[in-house]
Amino acid sequence: MKTVTCTAPVNIAVIKYWGKRDTQLILPTNDSLSVTLSQDILHSKTTISAAKEYSGDRLWLNGKEEDITKNKRMHNCFRETRAIRKAVEDKAAAAGQPIELLSTYPVHVCSENNFPTAAGLASSASGLAALVFTLAKLFDLPSDMSELSRIARQGSGSACRSLFGGFVAWEMGKEADGSDSKAVQVAPETHWPELEALVCVVSDAKKGTSSTEGMQNTIQTSPLMAERLKVVPGRMEAMKKAILAKDFESFGELTMRDSNQFHAVCLDTFPPIFYLNDTSRGIMRLIHEYNRSSPDGKIKAAYTYDAGPNAVIYAPKQNMREIIQLIAHYFPGTDSDYYFKDTYGVLGGAALGENYLPAAHTSFEEVIPVHPVGSVSRLLHTKTHDGPRVLSEKDSLLNEQGLPKRTAQV
Amino acid sequence: MKTVTCTAPVNIAVIKYWGKRDTQLILPTNDSLSVTLSQDILHSKTTISAAKEYSGDRLWLNGKEEDITKNKRMHNCFRETRAIRKAVEDKAAAAGQPIELLSTYPVHVCSENNFPTAAGLASSASGLAALVFTLAKLFDLPSDMSELSRIARQGSGSACRSLFGGFVAWEMGKEADGSDSKAVQVAPETHWPELEALVCVVSDAKKGTSSTEGMQNTIQTSPLMAERLKVVPGRMEAMKKAILAKDFESFGELTMRDSNQFHAVCLDTFPPIFYLNDTSRGIMRLIHEYNRSSPDGKIKAAYTYDAGPNAVIYAPKQNMREIIQLIAHYFPGTDSDYYFKDTYGVLGGAALGENYLPAAHTSFEEVIPVHPVGSVSRLLHTKTHDGPRVLSEKDSLLNEQGLPKRTAQV
Repeated sequence: MKTVTCTAPVNIAVIKYWGKRDTQLILPTNDSLSVTLSQDILHSKTTISAAKEYSGDRLWLNGKEEDITKNKRMHNCFRETRAIRKAVEDKAAAAGQPIELLSTYPVHVCSENNFPTAAGLASSASGLAALVFTLAKLFDLPSDMSELSRIARQGSGSACRSLFGGFVAWEMGKEADGSDSKAVQVAPETHWPELEALVCVVSDAKKGTSSTEGMQNTIQTSPLMAERLKVVPGRMEAMKKAILAKDFESFGELTMRDSNQFHAVCLDTFPPIFYLNDTSRGIMRLIHEYNRSSPDGKIKAAYTYDAGPNAVIYAPKQNMREIIQLIAHYFPGTDSDYYFKDTYGVLGGAALGENYLPAAHTSFEEVIPVHPVGSVSRLLHTKTHDGPRVLSEKDSLLNEQGLPKRTAQV
Repeated sequence: MKTVTCTAPVNIAVIKYWGKRDTQLILPTNDSLSVTLSQDILHSKTTISAAKEYSGDRLWLNGKEEDITKNKRMHNCFRETRAIRKAVEDKAAAAGQPIELLSTYPVHVCSENNFPTAAGLASSASGLAALVFTLAKLFDLPSDMSELSRIARQGSGSACRSLFGGFVAWEMGKEADGSDSKAVQVAPETHWPELEALVCVVSDAKKGTSSTEGMQNTIQTSPLMAERLKVVPGRMEAMKKAILAKDFESFGELTMRDSNQFHAVCLDTFPPIFYLNDTSRGIMRLIHEYNRSSPDGKIKAAYTYDAGPNAVIYAPKQNMREIIQLIAHYFPGTDSDYYFKDTYGVLGGAALGENYLPAAHTSFEEVIPVHPVGSVSRLLHTKTHDGPRVLSEKDSLLNEQGLPKRTAQV
């Protein structure tokens, strides 16, 4: 029996992926670019164990057993990684130095996110990245990360970007077989350590449209989407340049414009797709007011929204305290301990349950009412960080019998 | 002294006007098309009196005196209509048959809307149309309606469409002087009497972006706008065809798609412009669910939104009862009498304060929660109707001294 445990991070795109040119191979209609967030705050953790003795492949997701044969996306990742392992095994055997035939062993997979699904944060990117990375370690694959990213892409498109830390581009590629559609690192996390992120978890009663279904409806019905596809290449170049120059002004404006354009083509889809709600739009307004109030006229923060109402605010470290104060003032939480739990006490001991907002910023109330308590339920303060990590044996999610140590509390 | 009183209707575009190529002359970047709603429900009423004895031009809007010299849009309309009158006067004098020199008399203008400004319904279109039409009657101008529409356009772009009843196109024109940018009637109100409209007045605490400012920001900053300008000509042709064929299926889908695209380019503007709120989007969702439930798969209702959160639902008369039931169920009002006041008792005597929704439609609750009471404050049930009307002397808003009969209750 061989067992490996790894974690993979969440990534939040600043140039959005929306639309596939091949739904089977998951080949996108445009390049995209994301920032990898720290696994200390948000991650997917996966343990995979391979053993000749297992009766078959089994899967536990967040403590609940699921039918692995029904998970087509995972199946793609198993097929691809097992094929590479098989080639290595065959080669070793041919050379007269056979290795363990791991590619033929059944596996047990146990995976969980350290953030509640209820938070509405996309977990498929980190989840599939953790799966592929763990499989690569389990099978001791020779492949480099970009090679692995092509496999992760077939599990969940944006998962390919979670295989790197820092700033990551997913190059759409041109080949019909997807061989050139892969992730590359634009800059490592050490390049721009001042860049931080604040995830604002926005409450929403309504079920959103799944992104898999939504993006294909956009491709088929939105007349504006064709123009977006012409706009993205220029934005990709400008975004890479902004990152390499650590130019927050350009980075922030491009990030907001691209988020807005993604939601615009969703609205131009028929029937229309909505992910932003009144709270999301209130946070957008707040960030624009905050930027307008900037003494030197420079952008101080930038929002972005994926296929859901949660805001992710990117900002230089020096502005983060003010931003947390602002959000806490205009979008107060119901439970201060929970609300501020992952803000590292950035507001100091007096933070919880008080109003710290500098007077200059309460004037925004003319355009942004203080929202109902609980519209934002939680803040997660984080930053750019590294790619997938290999954990030690003691962190395994499976016990010595290859069964989950913990199961879901029903 | 000569006094004339007229009313002009509200029009709601189904192909939206958004963007000027000339902000002085108010020349649009695309054609637009609207439906004129009945003045029995919504109108602007204007009395204008001209008298040699007046000391100067005066203006009362909704009972409050305003400085007429500061109203540039109105000034354009005075200048243009007085110039035509002057030409007529000069010609008559040259022919030895002089007429009253009304173009030289000061005027008193008194105008009011029969709908509360708080309702958030655009009043500039009906207001400026009433002004220009009343001036034309006062000055006994020889001009036809399309000629007058060019003048009204310079008061408020969409006012040009309120000079006709029924279905009205505003042709953007090509000339730099705006001489070919005018409204024309596509079909009179008698053409499709089954087409009705339901205005849902949506409560909103937030002040929206003015459309004058907003549309120029879109032209300057939205990359997607260029594509919209390519899309509109085809939509105009398809919409005219749908109207002439009384094809609600095509009319409805085009109406919804164009409303969504207008709001999409607003979102693609930087900073973004939002007019739709959670209630607006809830109504959109409801209409899509309602259409999805249609037994023959045909569209039963279509929404459209101008620069604000209010929904206007177009539908064939036969569906209106069901639509009012649906809206009343999912978006209940606080005051039944007020809420249903202008629905002509279409639900019957038992309507007020009860739940009439057919069981088949309560299943939408899975995707559309019943919204908080008061999210929609009022329904106005109306239909396609005629253009501006000349009223009798007894309807004058000015008394014999040329002063308002009523003044605002402060």
